[in-house]
Amino acid sequence: MDYTIQKRVDGDFDDVIERTTQALEEEGFGILSDIDFGGTFEAKLDLDEEYRNYRVLGACNPGLARQGLDEEIGLGTLLPCNVAVYEADDGAVVVAAVDPKRLLGLAENPALDPIADEVTERFERVLDDL
Amino acid sequence: MDYTIQKRVDGDFDDVIERTTQALEEEGFGILSDIDFGGTFEAKLDLDEEYRNYRVLGACNPGLARQGLDEEIGLGTLLPCNVAVYEADDGAVVVAAVDPKRLLGLAENPALDPIADEVTERFERVLDDL
Repeated sequence: MDYTIQKRVDGDFDDVIERTTQALEEEGFGILSDIDFGGTFEAKLDLDEEYRNYRVLGACNPGLARQGLDEEIGLGTLLPCNVAVYEADDGAVVVAAVDPKRLLGLAENPALDPIADEVTERFERVLDDL
Repeated sequence: MDYTIQKRVDGDFDDVIERTTQALEEEGFGILSDIDFGGTFEAKLDLDEEYRNYRVLGACNPGLARQGLDEEIGLGTLLPCNVAVYEADDGAVVVAAVDPKRLLGLAENPALDPIADEVTERFERVLDDL
């Protein structure tokens, strides 16, 4: 999956969520959305068993997001940059951030390259911290 | 911006948000996130003036999302599909959905093509309804 940058993390799922949120905040990202796909599927679909823990945190650095929207007013359709936290089949917890260069690359606008580079560097530090 | 499918809509901003939400629900999408970028920028950045109205609705059809995750466990980094509603420079309200084929195309997984096609058809009907 080369549209993500990711890391397998030891620890309890809720604990990894908390550590990821804190690491994102330390890199200047607020969490603007927090989607519980596991809970949504269990509530809306007729499943035979519980779905795996699967949350998606929408991470936004307001200054960088604003720069992006100044370049491309439609860029909000690609924001915020998501960080998925989920249980792998073997029970490990995976933290997977969308690759900002691939995501913002959809706009084919070179003015966005420095923003994508900056978000990538910050995401890499977040994953290193976990 | 060929990573979106969009439409200019007459009407008050909040009214367009309401109509868009309702049209999405009629096509089987729940709104799993609702991000107010205008309000976020005003709260977090030192702006000289108010930011334009700019909201991003995260639209999710649980059945299709679950199919997508069954194919690609990391696909949550690209979900939900965003529908941005914002004021254009001339005051018109624009409803811009991310192009599902471009977004899911990042995964380069042909098994996702029918899902992207289905979401695209539904988004096109949502925009037609507005």
